[in-house]
Amino acid sequence: MIDVADLDDIAVGGAILGTGGGGDPYIGKLMAQQAIRKYGPVRLIDVDEMKDDELAVPCAMMGAPTVMVEKIPQGGEIMEAFRKLERFLGKKIGAVLCAEAGGLNSTIPFIVGAAARLPVIDGDGMGRAYPEIQMVTFTMHGVSATPMVVVDDKGNSILLETIHNKWTERLARTATIEMGGSVLIALYPMLGRVAKKASVRGTLSLARRLGQILRESRATHAGAVAAIVSQLSAATIFHGRVTDIERRTVGGFARGDAKFAGVDQYRGHDYRIEFQNEFLIAERDGEPMVTTPDLITLLDVDTGAPITTETIRFGLRVVAIAIPCAPQWRTPAGLALVGPRYFGYNTDYRPFRASERAP
Amino acid sequence: MIDVADLDDIAVGGAILGTGGGGDPYIGKLMAQQAIRKYGPVRLIDVDEMKDDELAVPCAMMGAPTVMVEKIPQGGEIMEAFRKLERFLGKKIGAVLCAEAGGLNSTIPFIVGAAARLPVIDGDGMGRAYPEIQMVTFTMHGVSATPMVVVDDKGNSILLETIHNKWTERLARTATIEMGGSVLIALYPMLGRVAKKASVRGTLSLARRLGQILRESRATHAGAVAAIVSQLSAATIFHGRVTDIERRTVGGFARGDAKFAGVDQYRGHDYRIEFQNEFLIAERDGEPMVTTPDLITLLDVDTGAPITTETIRFGLRVVAIAIPCAPQWRTPAGLALVGPRYFGYNTDYRPFRASERAP
Repeated sequence: MIDVADLDDIAVGGAILGTGGGGDPYIGKLMAQQAIRKYGPVRLIDVDEMKDDELAVPCAMMGAPTVMVEKIPQGGEIMEAFRKLERFLGKKIGAVLCAEAGGLNSTIPFIVGAAARLPVIDGDGMGRAYPEIQMVTFTMHGVSATPMVVVDDKGNSILLETIHNKWTERLARTATIEMGGSVLIALYPMLGRVAKKASVRGTLSLARRLGQILRESRATHAGAVAAIVSQLSAATIFHGRVTDIERRTVGGFARGDAKFAGVDQYRGHDYRIEFQNEFLIAERDGEPMVTTPDLITLLDVDTGAPITTETIRFGLRVVAIAIPCAPQWRTPAGLALVGPRYFGYNTDYRPFRASERAP
Repeated sequence: MIDVADLDDIAVGGAILGTGGGGDPYIGKLMAQQAIRKYGPVRLIDVDEMKDDELAVPCAMMGAPTVMVEKIPQGGEIMEAFRKLERFLGKKIGAVLCAEAGGLNSTIPFIVGAAARLPVIDGDGMGRAYPEIQMVTFTMHGVSATPMVVVDDKGNSILLETIHNKWTERLARTATIEMGGSVLIALYPMLGRVAKKASVRGTLSLARRLGQILRESRATHAGAVAAIVSQLSAATIFHGRVTDIERRTVGGFARGDAKFAGVDQYRGHDYRIEFQNEFLIAERDGEPMVTTPDLITLLDVDTGAPITTETIRFGLRVVAIAIPCAPQWRTPAGLALVGPRYFGYNTDYRPFRASERAP
């Protein structure tokens, strides 16, 4: 069961899997905790516990995160999106699925789980955060993002049916902007038999575990970073100090790059991380080290706390870690959706392996 | 019954009621004629022939007119919009209503009437053309524009539910642009008892009559303009020659103004007509003569053919006529929706009466 305290951990773990982006989980956490206080704890189930013909539906926030805590007593817009989709499908929904375990959307499904008294599946469609609707493993398995319901805070709603998931992204994105920049969505309805193949498993309990590690390490002054790296089969790629940070907004993306001077055993090397909402490519001395779809995460060297693109500042001491992505992303279909070339980087994907950790 | 030849007349009459805008009815005519050739003629009924609890639904094209004749054999996107709305409402639709009798949308309902074998109601929601969704008499009677279905030529569709009709306009407009600039819509579903109060009556048979007059006057060399003015309880406001024409696109509107030097008995006066898609205000020597919601229409001095904002050119000889609008528009609620101040003109509406015709 997921209780109020678990949400604290999931939010922290979600920020680690958010790889610098994904939206601040704090806001979603507040809303999910409010819902759990009102409706009781939420059951987290393995996807195999679903019946093959049961319906699972991911729920998420799209656009800029907004607090809507005062609306949770009625379940808020997210419940409206959920119920509208259920009504349109004409079939009861049996479980809530997470679209994006990284960032804000690691916590949003628990609002629906609590208010609708439904289990949340331990898994998601990314194993991390990505900025666009079609960037989920569900797309690779032929799951349509639509019918999708978009609900705003004023009471307007839109039900989309599109010919493919990139059109869903285009139409839902323009609607989100026109609706004020922040909406709640229900999309990618799928049967249990599909969810079993199409989802990345165990990512919500992983987020909770990462949060626990960080919380416990803090209490005991133990090595938070080392514990996280070990939990994730990850590897440290460098220790560094921020020497430069540049951000700009291009086509709705928070784009930019951060430069670092290596410290300790990494001294003498220059590092650079580029981001488009999320960290997407890390370089050492101008050569790519790690790229999307593998996860690049920055942690505070002392506390192990995850650092987002917004909080990077000159002089900050960080540990950069790389985490192997979900295996589904390493297929040709996965790389076509989220590989470095999709994001405009002129480099091939080379799978990161923790055993090849940098010197 | 409305047959292929009737559509020729309705399209011409629709252009007259289009007051310079409303989209070229020629394209809609081609599609409606194709549908009638395939499915047979369409019954045009008085709204009083509807049962009170029968459902009427307006269908229209939104955005830039596009020919989709090749899709009519299946009924095309407009039938998809119509059927999706019917499915969502869970009630059979009994009649097709026209949203806008001026311009392109005077002919679109006949595609659905033919393909769905349903009657088309002789009336509309404007008695003319206007550029925005909420600008219909239906709005004044509290009819919601939603649920509304928007369908594009690629196979994407959107179902909107909004808190008021101006939000429908905003959200459907951005979707239309993102979908390529031209979509088919079904909206403003209403019961017969509502349609009887909320619609402007007789406007499609009026459009057909205007087309007939023009056709017959041409054949007999009789005075086309005089016959049209008489049919419409209209009045000539000036004869002029175009001395200047300026067009620009602002916020999706084709805005601009045309200047005229008076000729014949109007010599010595300068005239000016401003437009935002449709002609909205006519001035003589800098003073307003006629404004929206009354209709301002330009006719070719020789043939009586309607002249749109796109076809105005330097040197053209025109007759400008003014037509009293549907009485519903002259109420405070009507003027709030489409009066001169809504369009940004700093002048009050003064109802045009044909008896006060200019010298």
